Amino acid sequence: MARRLAIVGGDAAGMSAASSARRRDPDLDVVAFERGPYTSYSACGIPYFVAGLVDRAERLIARGPEQHRERGIDVRTGWEVLAIDLAARRLTVRAASGEEVGEPFDELVVATGAEAATPPIAGAEAIEPARTVDAAERLRAALERGGRSAVVIGGGYIGLEMAEAFADRGLDVTMVEQEDQIMGTLDDEMAAHVQDAAEGHGIRVILGASVEEVVVDDAGAPAAVRTSAETLDADHVVVGTGARPAVAVAREAGLQIGDSGALRVDDHQRCPGHDGVFAAGDCAESHHRLLDRPVNVQLGTHANKQGRIAGVNATGGDLRFPGVIGTAVSKICKYEVARTGLGEAEAAEAGIEVVSATIEDRTRAAYYPGAGPIWVKLVAAPGSGRLLGGQIVGVEGAAKRIDVLATAVWAGLAVDELALLDLSYAPPFSGVYDPLLVAARATAKLI
Amino acid sequence: MARRLAIVGGDAAGMSAASSARRRDPDLDVVAFERGPYTSYSACGIPYFVAGLVDRAERLIARGPEQHRERGIDVRTGWEVLAIDLAARRLTVRAASGEEVGEPFDELVVATGAEAATPPIAGAEAIEPARTVDAAERLRAALERGGRSAVVIGGGYIGLEMAEAFADRGLDVTMVEQEDQIMGTLDDEMAAHVQDAAEGHGIRVILGASVEEVVVDDAGAPAAVRTSAETLDADHVVVGTGARPAVAVAREAGLQIGDSGALRVDDHQRCPGHDGVFAAGDCAESHHRLLDRPVNVQLGTHANKQGRIAGVNATGGDLRFPGVIGTAVSKICKYEVARTGLGEAEAAEAGIEVVSATIEDRTRAAYYPGAGPIWVKLVAAPGSGRLLGGQIVGVEGAAKRIDVLATAVWAGLAVDELALLDLSYAPPFSGVYDPLLVAARATAKLI
Repeated sequence: MARRLAIVGGDAAGMSAASSARRRDPDLDVVAFERGPYTSYSACGIPYFVAGLVDRAERLIARGPEQHRERGIDVRTGWEVLAIDLAARRLTVRAASGEEVGEPFDELVVATGAEAATPPIAGAEAIEPARTVDAAERLRAALERGGRSAVVIGGGYIGLEMAEAFADRGLDVTMVEQEDQIMGTLDDEMAAHVQDAAEGHGIRVILGASVEEVVVDDAGAPAAVRTSAETLDADHVVVGTGARPAVAVAREAGLQIGDSGALRVDDHQRCPGHDGVFAAGDCAESHHRLLDRPVNVQLGTHANKQGRIAGVNATGGDLRFPGVIGTAVSKICKYEVARTGLGEAEAAEAGIEVVSATIEDRTRAAYYPGAGPIWVKLVAAPGSGRLLGGQIVGVEGAAKRIDVLATAVWAGLAVDELALLDLSYAPPFSGVYDPLLVAARATAKLI
Repeated sequence: MARRLAIVGGDAAGMSAASSARRRDPDLDVVAFERGPYTSYSACGIPYFVAGLVDRAERLIARGPEQHRERGIDVRTGWEVLAIDLAARRLTVRAASGEEVGEPFDELVVATGAEAATPPIAGAEAIEPARTVDAAERLRAALERGGRSAVVIGGGYIGLEMAEAFADRGLDVTMVEQEDQIMGTLDDEMAAHVQDAAEGHGIRVILGASVEEVVVDDAGAPAAVRTSAETLDADHVVVGTGARPAVAVAREAGLQIGDSGALRVDDHQRCPGHDGVFAAGDCAESHHRLLDRPVNVQLGTHANKQGRIAGVNATGGDLRFPGVIGTAVSKICKYEVARTGLGEAEAAEAGIEVVSATIEDRTRAAYYPGAGPIWVKLVAAPGSGRLLGGQIVGVEGAAKRIDVLATAVWAGLAVDELALLDLSYAPPFSGVYDPLLVAARATAKLI
């Protein structure tokens, strides 16, 4: 009988694992259990569907169950894994029919993703997290039925993307953030530019206020949000206070959970102590190369890579996930926003001494049409000048420059070397010194 | 008496040298001789002025003579250096008045730039190269006086930028290139996409044809261009066949000229054998880090950096120019075009064995508005997988990714490491795997 690889979770990590295993071993039996109706969808695209920039939710689906089946993967949508017996190599699964069945496996990939971390606020449990394609469809349908006001609880990037989507639909939008800055992944002075962009887009931002209640009407629909500052009308509410790894079943099975709350894995995506058992994606930890400790970063790009690596290694391969450095990018109203490596605040929290410099420049030659502001902040080690991180905010063309900094951080370049690096120049793309070179030079002066 | 730093040439390299020396040593006497009327202008911006994207030519001037004078630099515009006596530390200069004068120096920076390499074609000498702000003004004035047809001789990036400018002004434009591809800095299959863009913009491209005569009317204005293929109407003609380092005076003075035809310099921009004499910018060589030999690359970004380094080192500093890797970017009609490191053809010519892969992808998530094609070609060493170069063509957002490849080439990353690097992802900026990661993975498979 063929060996059997079972996969728990049919989104980015799970289906990447399934696909790479399928390609490597044509004789393997590959089965993937997904409790929802969809596979391989882009949760990152949901705000654009809500905004109406993407017309149909199905466009967010990179590859549906039928397409995976055509490629020889036994996808079971509507099947929920209830328990994992690692010793007996057996899953307990509630089938789409409702029946509980046992499903054997030889190798296992746990790719259960993350779930909304709804805060303990009265009424918040009535708000469905817009984390799946079908939830997004319900949210958009509610928006299309009407309403004038929206409140977004939490000022992270997903909250901001959703606030922008609501504003684009003509709603009065208020964002409530309990910290004293939005976009907590950036240092505060960089986050202030993002707040400018949000406010310029018509989004009201309330900082330092906690939400005390989501007031729900008799029909279960939101009506208002009561905060420590004031009570806000809210025909629509989004809770954007983050997500936590979905590890209940894996924990119950005895797989190790790290301090981050996610599944511990080694650099081959193996779950320690359990041969042939792998974890990947939002439910798993990643090694942070600068902090030198495991972290939980929920991003589609890591999920895809880790899933592929799990699939390769589950079929006798030897691929290593090299870790993460915290690179992220988003588009927030008129600005693009990006970060990589360590921020100044993050370094301080980790007890790492750094120097940092921030510059303001233009995205193109000053005389070239469309030139706009770009701010670049670099963080470096005081002795060696080694680049440890960067943050960028600016108009179109600004943010993807973060990948240059990510590559430099990854390779261990020092800021004085970065300042003289042969980066491209032409007037439609930058001034004669790219803003990254200007920032590197400003930082090098502090070393 | 104060020491005196003399600078020959008042554009990017010369004025960068003047400015950095001025800042470092307030007591130094800094004099810069520029034979034209302008300083520190962006020759790279000329096509955009010709197109009308930039309204006034003065906008191309980053800093005029008066601004430099206010900063304590004795700028002499309209003064032409005729001879350098290195032993006597004395320049012979034709002053703006026409008088020949002797000007002493202690340290010298030669920044004489490059000059059009007009090919030996009958009539071509009648066409003024559009390399300076005043020449660009004359060209635009001629365009505004009328004409229906234009011919661009030479299919490099400047020729293409000028062809686009002419097309944008409503002219019938034909480009004549004697090789069998345009954009010779790219490998042929990548250049083919650029040709598509040019042709889609209404530019007729004739390959493999040599120009035999520029037919000029009695008033000295162009009328036609006779090629080996056919004779073309030409109310306007641009010769875009490259430029050569302007080194006549320096050669005469005994400064060493390298095989590239440019001035030899060490990694401190010093002219070998002559203490206190520096060269920088288009007239000087640069060390190519991959070819490990001197090359002459005429780009404003190198000119600025080398000028600054010359100015620092001329005032007792110790800055090293780390060399170049051939990074370049341009916008050609609907596409952005970029390259870094070695191309496949270039490597073959240098006798370097490589593997290479080319991928086609989208600039954004497929469902996100504005996603368009991007082609990425990578070149790597067959044994180590070390990235040696990359080329990118694609729609908006494509080309600045070249800086990621430049950083990776610079740092010596291998393609399998690049394939798993933590680059940024969000739907407005890329698919879940950035096209660079896709290309790196495709290339890694060949190693």
